Amino acid sequence: MGQRILIIGGVAAGPKAACRARRLLPDAEITIVDQDSLISYGGCGIPYFVSGDVNDEKELRSTSFHMVRDERFFRDAKGVEVKTRTRALAIDRKAKEVEVEDLEKGEKYRMPYDKLVLATGSQPFILPIPGVDLDGVFAISSLHKAIAIKERLARGEVEKVVIIGGGAIGLEMAEAFTDLWGVQTTVVEFMPQVLPFILDKTIAGMVAQHMRENGVTIHTGEGAKAIEGKDGRVSKVVTDKREIEADMVIMATGVRPRSQLAQEAGLLVSPRGGIVVNQRMQTSDPDIYAAGDCVETYNLVTGNKAYAPLGSVANRQGRVVADNLAGIPSTFEGVVGSFIMKAFEICVGATGASLEVATREGFDAVDAFCVQADRAHFFPTQALMFLQMVVDRPTRRVLGLQGFAKMGDGLMARINAAAGMIANRATVSDFSNLELAYAPPFSNAVDILNAVANVADNVVSGRLRPVSMEEFLAWMENPSSRPDWRLLDLRHPKEAAALKEKFPEIWIDIPYDQVRSRYRELPADKFLVLNCNSGTRSYEVQRFLDSVGITNTGVLQGSFNVVRRLGVSWWPAQ
Amino acid sequence: MGQRILIIGGVAAGPKAACRARRLLPDAEITIVDQDSLISYGGCGIPYFVSGDVNDEKELRSTSFHMVRDERFFRDAKGVEVKTRTRALAIDRKAKEVEVEDLEKGEKYRMPYDKLVLATGSQPFILPIPGVDLDGVFAISSLHKAIAIKERLARGEVEKVVIIGGGAIGLEMAEAFTDLWGVQTTVVEFMPQVLPFILDKTIAGMVAQHMRENGVTIHTGEGAKAIEGKDGRVSKVVTDKREIEADMVIMATGVRPRSQLAQEAGLLVSPRGGIVVNQRMQTSDPDIYAAGDCVETYNLVTGNKAYAPLGSVANRQGRVVADNLAGIPSTFEGVVGSFIMKAFEICVGATGASLEVATREGFDAVDAFCVQADRAHFFPTQALMFLQMVVDRPTRRVLGLQGFAKMGDGLMARINAAAGMIANRATVSDFSNLELAYAPPFSNAVDILNAVANVADNVVSGRLRPVSMEEFLAWMENPSSRPDWRLLDLRHPKEAAALKEKFPEIWIDIPYDQVRSRYRELPADKFLVLNCNSGTRSYEVQRFLDSVGITNTGVLQGSFNVVRRLGVSWWPAQ
Repeated sequence: MGQRILIIGGVAAGPKAACRARRLLPDAEITIVDQDSLISYGGCGIPYFVSGDVNDEKELRSTSFHMVRDERFFRDAKGVEVKTRTRALAIDRKAKEVEVEDLEKGEKYRMPYDKLVLATGSQPFILPIPGVDLDGVFAISSLHKAIAIKERLARGEVEKVVIIGGGAIGLEMAEAFTDLWGVQTTVVEFMPQVLPFILDKTIAGMVAQHMRENGVTIHTGEGAKAIEGKDGRVSKVVTDKREIEADMVIMATGVRPRSQLAQEAGLLVSPRGGIVVNQRMQTSDPDIYAAGDCVETYNLVTGNKAYAPLGSVANRQGRVVADNLAGIPSTFEGVVGSFIMKAFEICVGATGASLEVATREGFDAVDAFCVQADRAHFFPTQALMFLQMVVDRPTRRVLGLQGFAKMGDGLMARINAAAGMIANRATVSDFSNLELAYAPPFSNAVDILNAVANVADNVVSGRLRPVSMEEFLAWMENPSSRPDWRLLDLRHPKEAAALKEKFPEIWIDIPYDQVRSRYRELPADKFLVLNCNSGTRSYEVQRFLDSVGITNTGVLQGSFNVVRRLGVSWWPAQ
Repeated sequence: MGQRILIIGGVAAGPKAACRARRLLPDAEITIVDQDSLISYGGCGIPYFVSGDVNDEKELRSTSFHMVRDERFFRDAKGVEVKTRTRALAIDRKAKEVEVEDLEKGEKYRMPYDKLVLATGSQPFILPIPGVDLDGVFAISSLHKAIAIKERLARGEVEKVVIIGGGAIGLEMAEAFTDLWGVQTTVVEFMPQVLPFILDKTIAGMVAQHMRENGVTIHTGEGAKAIEGKDGRVSKVVTDKREIEADMVIMATGVRPRSQLAQEAGLLVSPRGGIVVNQRMQTSDPDIYAAGDCVETYNLVTGNKAYAPLGSVANRQGRVVADNLAGIPSTFEGVVGSFIMKAFEICVGATGASLEVATREGFDAVDAFCVQADRAHFFPTQALMFLQMVVDRPTRRVLGLQGFAKMGDGLMARINAAAGMIANRATVSDFSNLELAYAPPFSNAVDILNAVANVADNVVSGRLRPVSMEEFLAWMENPSSRPDWRLLDLRHPKEAAALKEKFPEIWIDIPYDQVRSRYRELPADKFLVLNCNSGTRSYEVQRFLDSVGITNTGVLQGSFNVVRRLGVSWWPAQ
């Protein structure tokens, strides 16, 4: 008999550690305990189960070869013992035993271990507001909750949903309710944008606008103050600005590490609640490992501690735990925060730090924006893609990348390419020279990821002087707030006509290819915002105007192609 | 007046260098000469123009904002002078002048330069066989040829095409002819596989089989010996094995650097014909730069010289030239060989070295194969993806990655992620821990790129002992060639039944989840090839069998999911 490995938690990191440990340590006695009856499921699939894209919850806990990952499967196929409905109550580190309770029989007993693995996961953060216990208020804490939500939908009991929280889970749930069930859905987000801390304002604004166009009501910068009910059932959500009727409320305000057991056992736990581990995923007790949503990790961009509750991270950490149990010195060094999300017909992704986060973390950060066809612009299936790159000015290190694109895998191709490079502290030049796969049905000779790095190079070198979208929108809302400016529209006169008519006092249109012959028409005493549909023509014109002494100019980051996707009131109707 | 920059060649590297130099050096006098009348076009788009995906050749030479990139555009919009139909005849390095000929007027004159840029491109390699001058034999050397081919197709003059060469251009042209024009198309490739030197045999075999299923005839390992004609027009291609009727022949046997001008001027040119440049893209004359298809570069994996005639590489090199002309010390360090191609409903990609190339270059290389859903296996749009990773055993450095997938951008997402890491000498562990973006509509919690690295880790560590697809297919063709073996089929008995009936003497079926209880049924004296639909179950069973002393086993690389895509004769009909 080999060593006794006891694993607490049977969703992602736990089963991964168990199964790999089994393959590495044929003699070990490996046991998983979990307080739930359902184990080893794809929790990230819950929104797609609720929406109906995934019909049966069993699909979320089956292998790709259609075997349900239950206790029998783990025993027969994997050689791993699983005890479900068994709650770990306490760790006796001295005796190396865990006290557990059989929730079916109500019996308590002790399980000995040589090595213990904590994979206790996370629990939803519930806002401390009145009414969270009303019937109809759900947090997405387990597959059981998802099943209960879907049952109410299927019974036709849900007409109006309020989702508190505009992060990834909140938005995915909003799509699920709206798109497939036709439920009237409202998202309430306390921060001034959706997907805060992941995206900067511009791309977040494009996501919110796309979701609004698809029927989701979104209120940002608005805090939920109370949930009210009738006869014990939820009836509305009260925010600091309004009351919203609801027969279901989803609490999607993030998760917290489930680390009470570790804390009570005297293991080191961070102030934010994550179990502290080294790069070998060992806790402060060398015989106890931890992995998944219950641990704290590092952010490889900022160097700060980070919390990354994701199934993908949990699986990688679980593998590192198994390796170390078997004496293989594998490490998990941290995260860069790679992210991707579908929202109706578009997708949005990011990796590394946003401009806001990078600045807050003390970097002298700048950003570059690029709008370009996702594949050869002559290829019939091409669509626009939007990338924003965040760069540390003094070192030219790329700190982050965000993007917005038509739904598909094209954006992921750029985010994935950036993820490994950002972890490796690549610079703007590394990205300019990055050899992305090229053929017209897939990409451009100058891929948008190379192109945004080229833009960043120009920004960092001071050759491209940008105007931020936020500044520009503020000026447009109130043109007199920035007295001495004009907008130079470089597009075809037909494209420029509607806005020129609407804003005659600030609009100037000279087509791109006429600027070299007509630049003398420009007012010498005004700040010129240069604009086109992608930014490339504006940059070229800025360089030319510099050469003739007209240097009081700025290139609008993101260009009109972004403006038209933000739902601003002054944009001409199509 | 600033420096005089003269650029020879106006397709990709030349215009890129010119336009960026203009933005960096407002005072320079920048001129491009090109012997052709059409310039600045996307040559890689030619197959899609021929197929009809792109209607008008003008689209290939337009900007994304629909301006045709002609002489007028370069002058007015870009501030760059272009002389078309102007051939460079000789470089007088001492006088710093280029002798040119105006092909319209037949006049010769000299153009002075301070800095010269050679972007003379490539020319098709024409096989030295009889008949290449017959009417109807085309090489894809310019947009004019493409227009001529399409005109013949449109006039209905083309019923049977033979394409000599099964590289990327050959296969893209084969799809164009077959898919949209219904032309009977045959590809003749001298090497024993399509896409030689880019892919290894297995994935190349899957590509060839998919193209055959879509109506393309492919003969590999077969050399074209002559082209024959009637009345001066092509009528057939004679190979070493057969005669193939043809009313059009496409010579797609690769390209060679167009470097005669450089050579005659005494510049250093490699034995294979590429202009030798340093990382600043400077030739052996410091006042002369070169970029694009005419230069030789480095392979960042093998350390050897390389030739990479691709529009994407040309653009990056052109940018480096411009930077150096302007005193910015940018470098182009080399290529890893990133590649992607559409073929009917699938796509295929690669980056870095194939197993064959790596082995030939002296690496102690091994490969790992992974077959997995491209996104969450419960997500409705999921499809299988196939990745093969090539690793240097002693250093664990990843040398290359190849893949095959349903047409889309998902494969590119993995190839692109690998490209930068391979250039940066990443190891298997770096790939295991690579933080790819994860959400069920896009990927898996353990992404296939992480998964293939995990397989590679197991192979390199000796935990997974593979059997190559080539060996296995040879044994199946002639089971007695490998006397003491059995195939252990771990799939569901229903899946195994047809082959078990067909090969009763070698087939054993025990479902995966019964092996732990039934392994005593296995013959102790036979070599067992373990097989399932993806390889994961086979690996798990190999680890288990090892633990009970049955160690004479091998896991079939790629599994039945590859076998069924190779068109082998013994595979049961669906």
